[in-house]
Amino acid sequence: MLNLKIITNFIGVVLILNGLFMMLGIPFSLYYGDNDIIVLLACGVGISLIGFILVLLTRKHEKEISKREGYIVVSVTWVIMALFGAIPFVVHGAIPSYTDAFFETMSGFTTTGASILNDIESLPHGLLFWRSMTQWLGGMGVIVLSIAILPMLGIGGMQLFVAEVPGPTKDKIHPRVRETAKRLWGIYVLFTIVEVFLLLLGGMNLFDSVNHALTTMATGGFSTKQSSIAAYDSPFIHYVMIVFMFIAGTNFTLHYHLLHRNFSAVKKNDEFKFYLKLIGTVVTIVIIGLLLADYAGIEKTFRDALFQVVSIITTTGYVTSDYELWGPFFQVLFFLLLFTGGSAGSTGGGIKMVRHYLLIKNSMMELKRLIHPRAVIPVRLNKSTVPSDIISNVLAFFLFYIFIFLLGTLIMSLIGMDFISALGASATSIGNVGPGIGTVGPTMNFANVPDIGKWILTFLMLLGRLELFTVLVIFSSAFWKK
Amino acid sequence: MLNLKIITNFIGVVLILNGLFMMLGIPFSLYYGDNDIIVLLACGVGISLIGFILVLLTRKHEKEISKREGYIVVSVTWVIMALFGAIPFVVHGAIPSYTDAFFETMSGFTTTGASILNDIESLPHGLLFWRSMTQWLGGMGVIVLSIAILPMLGIGGMQLFVAEVPGPTKDKIHPRVRETAKRLWGIYVLFTIVEVFLLLLGGMNLFDSVNHALTTMATGGFSTKQSSIAAYDSPFIHYVMIVFMFIAGTNFTLHYHLLHRNFSAVKKNDEFKFYLKLIGTVVTIVIIGLLLADYAGIEKTFRDALFQVVSIITTTGYVTSDYELWGPFFQVLFFLLLFTGGSAGSTGGGIKMVRHYLLIKNSMMELKRLIHPRAVIPVRLNKSTVPSDIISNVLAFFLFYIFIFLLGTLIMSLIGMDFISALGASATSIGNVGPGIGTVGPTMNFANVPDIGKWILTFLMLLGRLELFTVLVIFSSAFWKK
Repeated sequence: MLNLKIITNFIGVVLILNGLFMMLGIPFSLYYGDNDIIVLLACGVGISLIGFILVLLTRKHEKEISKREGYIVVSVTWVIMALFGAIPFVVHGAIPSYTDAFFETMSGFTTTGASILNDIESLPHGLLFWRSMTQWLGGMGVIVLSIAILPMLGIGGMQLFVAEVPGPTKDKIHPRVRETAKRLWGIYVLFTIVEVFLLLLGGMNLFDSVNHALTTMATGGFSTKQSSIAAYDSPFIHYVMIVFMFIAGTNFTLHYHLLHRNFSAVKKNDEFKFYLKLIGTVVTIVIIGLLLADYAGIEKTFRDALFQVVSIITTTGYVTSDYELWGPFFQVLFFLLLFTGGSAGSTGGGIKMVRHYLLIKNSMMELKRLIHPRAVIPVRLNKSTVPSDIISNVLAFFLFYIFIFLLGTLIMSLIGMDFISALGASATSIGNVGPGIGTVGPTMNFANVPDIGKWILTFLMLLGRLELFTVLVIFSSAFWKK
Repeated sequence: MLNLKIITNFIGVVLILNGLFMMLGIPFSLYYGDNDIIVLLACGVGISLIGFILVLLTRKHEKEISKREGYIVVSVTWVIMALFGAIPFVVHGAIPSYTDAFFETMSGFTTTGASILNDIESLPHGLLFWRSMTQWLGGMGVIVLSIAILPMLGIGGMQLFVAEVPGPTKDKIHPRVRETAKRLWGIYVLFTIVEVFLLLLGGMNLFDSVNHALTTMATGGFSTKQSSIAAYDSPFIHYVMIVFMFIAGTNFTLHYHLLHRNFSAVKKNDEFKFYLKLIGTVVTIVIIGLLLADYAGIEKTFRDALFQVVSIITTTGYVTSDYELWGPFFQVLFFLLLFTGGSAGSTGGGIKMVRHYLLIKNSMMELKRLIHPRAVIPVRLNKSTVPSDIISNVLAFFLFYIFIFLLGTLIMSLIGMDFISALGASATSIGNVGPGIGTVGPTMNFANVPDIGKWILTFLMLLGRLELFTVLVIFSSAFWKK
């Protein structure tokens, strides 16, 4: 039997946090004289109160949760956050439709960054801040999820990719989660603060600096500007964001090791090297292509290429230039980049660097095995042999990912989207990137997607963000059999 | 060291056959008074002569060939056939460009069916017959390849999927290939003859009946009409072709068992059941979609849906109706069908039914393994447990397939093709289907693809037809190391 009490207690805690963080933007609204103060206050207090009551009602519960409850708690957390987080947008009227508000909020908590807003600047500052905050909280959740929780649930090889932060025994969920959170959230907060200062230095105002720092570190990509980062023509700001997108797309345990001067852990990390090489290769290709097409001067070509490639690979989704106008080759290339994903243990979504690395290595090994059928040729990661069950889990992850993406594309085309836009909408949602291609391209948004399509895309965002299996397991019959 | 003598000897035999079969269309040209008789005679005799000389020069060679030589012989056979098979088209002038002629001939021998011809009816009958014959010979080659040769080379799980015809020991290549050829080619010839008679019965003339029977059984899809099978408005002809496309997409060892009244082998064959279910499901979806869109009357809707779905799933590529006009959903659906492929051991190309079946089964098992990490849950095929090395080979096949398809798409977009057409051209070539989507859709052709693109697509056809690994292995460094 599922322990509903402990699950409800957890939901209560989540709602309290949801309500409290919702009110953090109020000072900005006071400063700018916006009309969303009462709404944020009422919603924030109300939601916290509901959470508080739930916690009170279930305060006597067991300390440890089982694996099965773990799957449910994780999935439910994201859904509850989005369901309640959407409320102030609707109550205020800035986003009149609840479907739209839910889409925007789920896009926030999953750090996707896809938006239905057609005039972002018209929103009051408190709501805009809450919108950015959903991404930052989502990013915070993802770090703990991928580094402490998913490895214990055995999801998608995470146990191998990220279990590198020294901590207490793996069997107890609570202490380990608490330790990991303490260590890595400190780094997350630190980077966020540093980025705020650098953006201020680049001439961005305080409100925009804070918002963009929140959404960069989450690889979220929500901007306070309708035209995204193209609104700023400062190379300094662009470079700052490139650096922090890159940082946010890196495994946070590596940052932990770097801060503890443990450079060897970074040096021997195959995923990080792959991440660097991939960005380097793709940026070079894009620069050559743009120079041949006489796109702009050297510096701007370099900067736009680097910005867009890092933005998509890390699944951030900021835009400084509309790569869809660069020609069909770039449209295909950036479509493919929607499938790369950040590093495991980063805030980035998608398939993830380490999985691509292992898939490539394993495929090469398979060729060798054909020629030497009797040889035992293992796949190695960070100088250790990767167990075959991890390889097969990674392969299964990849297949489910492709299958769900294709199913999403098919459904989006069924509700009337053209082929290219359907591909883009599905890929960018499950990959938690933000912009797609076609009618949901980098300078467009999701406002015109039919409601049913918006609900399906939010489900894709959730699936992608929770590494598919966390959610899929709950839908399997084996999960409910005793 | 590679035994070049035995390889050259084999090429000689292939060239003799190439030349002899080339001349088989001459009676039709005589009957119709066409101007290609001298060309076919000269090319046929010349190519046979070259082959004869090669055989003479290398008549003293060892009897058995090694695995490594096997890979090379297989790949070289298809390339040599296409290189020489293209000659009469150029010499006659019906296809002035050698690139175009090579594309058409490789599309033939790989049973793809993609064409560069803009006015098929203007070709003399002897050349048209040779064009259809390339597909029939390719189909013949594929049956032996997939049922006798690839299993021995350990390619893509073929050892498990098709090694069901009783035969001599698996270690000796020659006797086994001879046995398999004798048994299965008889069936292939028989079905071809029966289809010719049925098409004659449906009112098709002798020349067209023979040509279409040749290209149906090969799941090739070359037609003697520019508008493909839409040129015939006879429901009887359409149904005959549906039946024979279905037969050609079925594992030929099942036909062997059926003809020997061994029904249990068919009943327990999971791939065949999957093939039936998939066709049934997709046809139902298409029929519902078309009825909702008020496409036509019940019978025509049923027939067009069944014809197009079977045509694409079996990788034949005949067209009776332009499914691209049916709307974006059908465009996505038919694009996805380019990846299904026929059954293993059939003349169909693509990923193949059995691989999809195993990938789906294995993914479901992986979900179960998450919930019960200690349970040993094997994947079963035809009531036997599938060894894990076969599963991992199938997974590697799938990854290479997707990777090469995406690389092909990227290259086609680089030479100026739009996104959708690039996807379609790459998918239909590696899948050996024929028609793609966009500018290479069912009512279009490949005439306007730049030359470099045509060469790349023929390479994709070859890769797909030889189950990727046969060719990829030759390009791996491990192959050339001793």
